[in-house]
Amino acid sequence: MTVDTFKQIVLASRPDGQPTVDNFRLEQAKLPDTPPNGLLLRVLYLSLDPYMRGRMDARKSYAPAVEIDHKMVGEAVAEVIESRHPDYREGELVLAPTGWCDHAVIDGTGLRKVDPALSAPSARLGVLGMPGFTAYAGLMLIGKPKPGDTVMVAAASGPVGSLVGQLARLAGARAVGIAGGSEKCRYLLDELGFDAAIDHRAPDMAEQLAAACPDGIDVYFENVGGKIWQAVLPLLNRFARVPVCGLIAQYSGDRNNADGQLAATMRQILTKSLLVRGFINYEFADEHYPEFLRIVADGIGEGKIRHKEDIVDGLEKAPEAFLGMLEGRNFGKVIVRVASEL
Amino acid sequence: MTVDTFKQIVLASRPDGQPTVDNFRLEQAKLPDTPPNGLLLRVLYLSLDPYMRGRMDARKSYAPAVEIDHKMVGEAVAEVIESRHPDYREGELVLAPTGWCDHAVIDGTGLRKVDPALSAPSARLGVLGMPGFTAYAGLMLIGKPKPGDTVMVAAASGPVGSLVGQLARLAGARAVGIAGGSEKCRYLLDELGFDAAIDHRAPDMAEQLAAACPDGIDVYFENVGGKIWQAVLPLLNRFARVPVCGLIAQYSGDRNNADGQLAATMRQILTKSLLVRGFINYEFADEHYPEFLRIVADGIGEGKIRHKEDIVDGLEKAPEAFLGMLEGRNFGKVIVRVASEL
Repeated sequence: MTVDTFKQIVLASRPDGQPTVDNFRLEQAKLPDTPPNGLLLRVLYLSLDPYMRGRMDARKSYAPAVEIDHKMVGEAVAEVIESRHPDYREGELVLAPTGWCDHAVIDGTGLRKVDPALSAPSARLGVLGMPGFTAYAGLMLIGKPKPGDTVMVAAASGPVGSLVGQLARLAGARAVGIAGGSEKCRYLLDELGFDAAIDHRAPDMAEQLAAACPDGIDVYFENVGGKIWQAVLPLLNRFARVPVCGLIAQYSGDRNNADGQLAATMRQILTKSLLVRGFINYEFADEHYPEFLRIVADGIGEGKIRHKEDIVDGLEKAPEAFLGMLEGRNFGKVIVRVASEL
Repeated sequence: MTVDTFKQIVLASRPDGQPTVDNFRLEQAKLPDTPPNGLLLRVLYLSLDPYMRGRMDARKSYAPAVEIDHKMVGEAVAEVIESRHPDYREGELVLAPTGWCDHAVIDGTGLRKVDPALSAPSARLGVLGMPGFTAYAGLMLIGKPKPGDTVMVAAASGPVGSLVGQLARLAGARAVGIAGGSEKCRYLLDELGFDAAIDHRAPDMAEQLAAACPDGIDVYFENVGGKIWQAVLPLLNRFARVPVCGLIAQYSGDRNNADGQLAATMRQILTKSLLVRGFINYEFADEHYPEFLRIVADGIGEGKIRHKEDIVDGLEKAPEAFLGMLEGRNFGKVIVRVASEL
């Protein structure tokens, strides 16, 4: 089997907001020779995923942007046509970052073998691939649903959301999904076993969501951002977990769905895998108070920890001292001495 | 020793933005009898803490608001004057939620004994009390500083921030603090051993902060919010940890420091101890990919997990399919079939 040329789709221009087809261009080019330890692949299945939208912009995300006139990035299930690598044989199937093309010459790194006995090969791009693993990792390792929890996910009929809901059910949680249109909502209820499904196009979406979550939300799997986040926020329970794996509503700079600073914050949380965790000290007190006392008291005793107090005499001075503290006029821990130690 | 009356400070009215002294009122009242298992306390030290600002508003935070004409809440070190509780003797010192008053009759619950041999009793309200433990819990249990990390904290000369910086140093991290004015900044550098100190009043505060954190920020201990958060955000490294324990800049509704949605988001993160954690699936792949494949593949095999694919034929259809996906027109995992499986 001889292949001389290949087809690829390149990024023709960067989108201004919503991308259009004019941002892409189909090209034909000559295939390079397969280098030592390299492979020639015939692409069978190319995966399209929301993260690619980010690669079309010049701004930095997880990974560098696609350069203008370069091939769009992407994962594929491909067949090995020619192998100069000892680990791969002609006819084998592999997962490979081929980009948007029909054939690719690649070096032998960054591949996974696809076992046809495990599943249909294309499933390795979806439920058994990156989207499925995204659902699994976000829900099970960060969200950690417990029996009786309410788990909410948007884009719930998609490859990530549909697995999130099902894994939540397997963990004994209630699954509430948001999707676009009655057909997708029926799919969630009838085929995936979601406990509730809400159409995000409904004008009263937020009210419907609240009604579907009478005990609040314990895990919100964030993959949308924008108006969904605003509807979810007031429903979150204390200690709710919010794995953030995507913000598709914000990818094309839709400023109507989220204002600038919140969008920027969420974007940072996402692209830097930030952990933002509210807390109140007494959450930890039962377990950690004794060690805290010992360590800090020793540190003070050994001169390694210093502290300062701003002592105000007289209960009647408390309001003034309090206001001063709010304005930063205190210096050290503000304490009102109401009476003397005897 | 006989005490008939006590003094207390009550909430006279709710503040509209910045509170004023008119929001408080000093009152004298008759002490009730000490009930069985109760205690009569003489307050020695009353702690004033930023969280109290939240209790002055009607809106719900961690805890209920103080009612109008009711005593302001607060913690105190107090001496037991009269005890009808078997565990406490006259003359002992206790930590107690007395509120803003000089004497209090309380039941025998919610107390900690104060050991005068451990420290000065007042320290149990500061570095060895709730603020100190807040610093310890947030930094060590959530922030988890590693040697070489850069730890940033604002209000760094206060009771929480000053311990955050010192504990960070003890953990081998660099400590960068923000405080108000040159005197506090000198204190951070000369007495607490911070590596850098920045005056938040400086017009170029954000630039100074960036210069003081040449390797970015690994742990930002959030207790301020507002403009500090905006300066910190671009400096956060991937996997940075942001324990959020306070947002004092937002407590009085200063809309100039943070726009509405971000403020609301941060407030929710805080008051509900939310975990917000950005992630990318491949962070977890080395450790968890095999189990994921097994569990999900079994689930599919047993009919417990379903999935759907939206297969588009032909590489040339990829752009259109991609745009459709961004608009939600797909139904299931979008996959472009570029060539047929053999």
